[in-house]
Amino acid sequence: MASCTSSLAKDVGELKAMMKAQNKRIDTLIKHIKEGCEAKEEVPPESTMSNMNPYIECLNPDILYHLALSTDTTDFPKMFGDVRFVCMGGTAARMLKFANFIMKEIGLKMNSGVKLKDLAEDANRYALYKVGPVLCASHGIGGPSISILLHELIKLMHHAKCQNPVFFRMGTSGGINVEPGSVVITSEALDGQLRPVHEVVVHTVPELRPTKLDRDLAQELKSLSDPCHDGYDTIIGKTLCANDFYEGQSRLDGAFCSYTPEKKKAFLEQVAGQGVLNMEMESTAFAAITNQAGIRSAVVCVTILDRLESDQITTPLEILKEWDSRPQTLIARYMQKVLFDIGDEDCSGSESCDCAGGDQAQPAQEVQPAQQAQPLEQNQSIEQPEPGDE
Amino acid sequence: MASCTSSLAKDVGELKAMMKAQNKRIDTLIKHIKEGCEAKEEVPPESTMSNMNPYIECLNPDILYHLALSTDTTDFPKMFGDVRFVCMGGTAARMLKFANFIMKEIGLKMNSGVKLKDLAEDANRYALYKVGPVLCASHGIGGPSISILLHELIKLMHHAKCQNPVFFRMGTSGGINVEPGSVVITSEALDGQLRPVHEVVVHTVPELRPTKLDRDLAQELKSLSDPCHDGYDTIIGKTLCANDFYEGQSRLDGAFCSYTPEKKKAFLEQVAGQGVLNMEMESTAFAAITNQAGIRSAVVCVTILDRLESDQITTPLEILKEWDSRPQTLIARYMQKVLFDIGDEDCSGSESCDCAGGDQAQPAQEVQPAQQAQPLEQNQSIEQPEPGDE
Repeated sequence: MASCTSSLAKDVGELKAMMKAQNKRIDTLIKHIKEGCEAKEEVPPESTMSNMNPYIECLNPDILYHLALSTDTTDFPKMFGDVRFVCMGGTAARMLKFANFIMKEIGLKMNSGVKLKDLAEDANRYALYKVGPVLCASHGIGGPSISILLHELIKLMHHAKCQNPVFFRMGTSGGINVEPGSVVITSEALDGQLRPVHEVVVHTVPELRPTKLDRDLAQELKSLSDPCHDGYDTIIGKTLCANDFYEGQSRLDGAFCSYTPEKKKAFLEQVAGQGVLNMEMESTAFAAITNQAGIRSAVVCVTILDRLESDQITTPLEILKEWDSRPQTLIARYMQKVLFDIGDEDCSGSESCDCAGGDQAQPAQEVQPAQQAQPLEQNQSIEQPEPGDE
Repeated sequence: MASCTSSLAKDVGELKAMMKAQNKRIDTLIKHIKEGCEAKEEVPPESTMSNMNPYIECLNPDILYHLALSTDTTDFPKMFGDVRFVCMGGTAARMLKFANFIMKEIGLKMNSGVKLKDLAEDANRYALYKVGPVLCASHGIGGPSISILLHELIKLMHHAKCQNPVFFRMGTSGGINVEPGSVVITSEALDGQLRPVHEVVVHTVPELRPTKLDRDLAQELKSLSDPCHDGYDTIIGKTLCANDFYEGQSRLDGAFCSYTPEKKKAFLEQVAGQGVLNMEMESTAFAAITNQAGIRSAVVCVTILDRLESDQITTPLEILKEWDSRPQTLIARYMQKVLFDIGDEDCSGSESCDCAGGDQAQPAQEVQPAQQAQPLEQNQSIEQPEPGDE
């Protein structure tokens, strides 16, 4: 009975959200009809990237080598000008899965005869998918790998004149004293020496750059979690970024190991004592580079084991897959909130819950395209949905 | 006329090599018949890896997470015990191409109805192909990425009880004052601070490990080049390994750039003055980790531009593809030499040449399977060739 009421409330919430979005579309249409052909075509402003390399303007063309994209063969503003979110994760498979998932979550769909194209396929390095205002890219493993991708994606944003895109890294990590399956939003990314920096060696001199992440964004993401209904915790804390999976993370199962299990335990307890919740291998580069470009960004990782308990990942594949989708779900909720501006007052169909945890229930999914995004390109073959679809 | 004589001489050389290999096979068969079923099955000795982690023996099973292989589901000695060469390169596409190329070069072939399987496919991280005694793996970009692969491949070698495998990294690089298309064999791998070390941070303390490569192996590889007939130089020199493609290599075309073209030029001239011929992103980790395990190893990279001339890679794709195959060709010659023990006296069909350069002509390709390798497994569907095939 309670479940039935809850389901009904959810349906009502979804219908209200649809009505609201439909009204917005009607308003836009009326505005468009009124303005007619008199309306001036807006000249896109410059991109909002900060501290850009001044020499880029001298490059004609600018070749983004590892993405196999070039300013002389691709119209960046036309192809990427509407991008508002850039999501990255380690593998091409994860990002393709995310791209197809987010398509549904933001109310877009494809013709049944097509599939998403890897836009960076020719370079054989990173996978790159575009779904409306969302760009999805695989970054490989480690700081050097993600740094190349970030340099080229930031240049892409710059050439495309993108406005205030938000960058996310989503991935897996080893938790420390955290229940496996929990989602960690990084408050601060620390390097192996527990410094909040990313080292870049320029002309033989190491430069230490701050790994600042957007605190408000982290809080906003956290507010979209709902531990009671999700069935897992979403927590904010520090992340240790290692340059190595085995010795760099004090594992006992690498090819080499010069320390004892006792030293390992002491190390993990030391970092846990400093507020570190998890360890991975890209957060410092991601944070430092997005910070340098003035991009709001967040790192959201699921923990797939508790390193105080073990080193090897023995969790069954099916469970790992479900855990893998948790950061994606949180980021999808954020995008829905931004794109559809759903208030909290009427779109939550969830029952009241007395669990400790999340500050806010998940908003109903509204299957409408981005209001503020530019229209989708025809050549992407992504259709706008009919109301009621999905 | 000269070309005709040369072609004839080459044919004679190849025929002689075939006869020699055929005689060896007959000898092996006679030995086998004499020994009959009385011959004891040899107990494989332990692997030759040095400094192995003592805790590995406690792992039951040992899961090589990023390769999706485990000691409880894979019989490592049976599947990988015959591996004598481990070749790695950046992308899965390059390594698949190399695997198919080396198959022909060492005289193996597959049934026409099958293709090579990526043995690490389930992990979605690295590609792994096995062709007789050759293991081919993609390592992604940067030290952290290749370090995971090396840890897991060294554990694989250890579990499989492999004997003295030789490891190669083959790839592309930016040359400094070197003709684009040249092949550089690394004498010494230097980090961004020009130190011959690879840094691993263990329990917050940076450890600097020596990046020693096998000098004899480098010389032996060099001796198999033939600049006159190859049409490009193969040289030995130092390699700078950066953790970043743009600022770390003093490029002017990254998203950020805090230095002038003059500072860039001064830096490149400084490193060239210290004997650095090229720059890439994996050699220090590769050298340090193979050295630690007591593995003979070499880094062989083609230079795809001269960084004193430009930063962007504008060479047409078809030329890049040909250049990409050059390190592969050199490594194939080395394997042929080791596997077929071809002397220099009678198998070179090349004309005499007064070019300065290589010390030795390319040996004729002998299409016989490895003499010392274990028999190929049936489930790989790789057939032993008939004499005269290919």
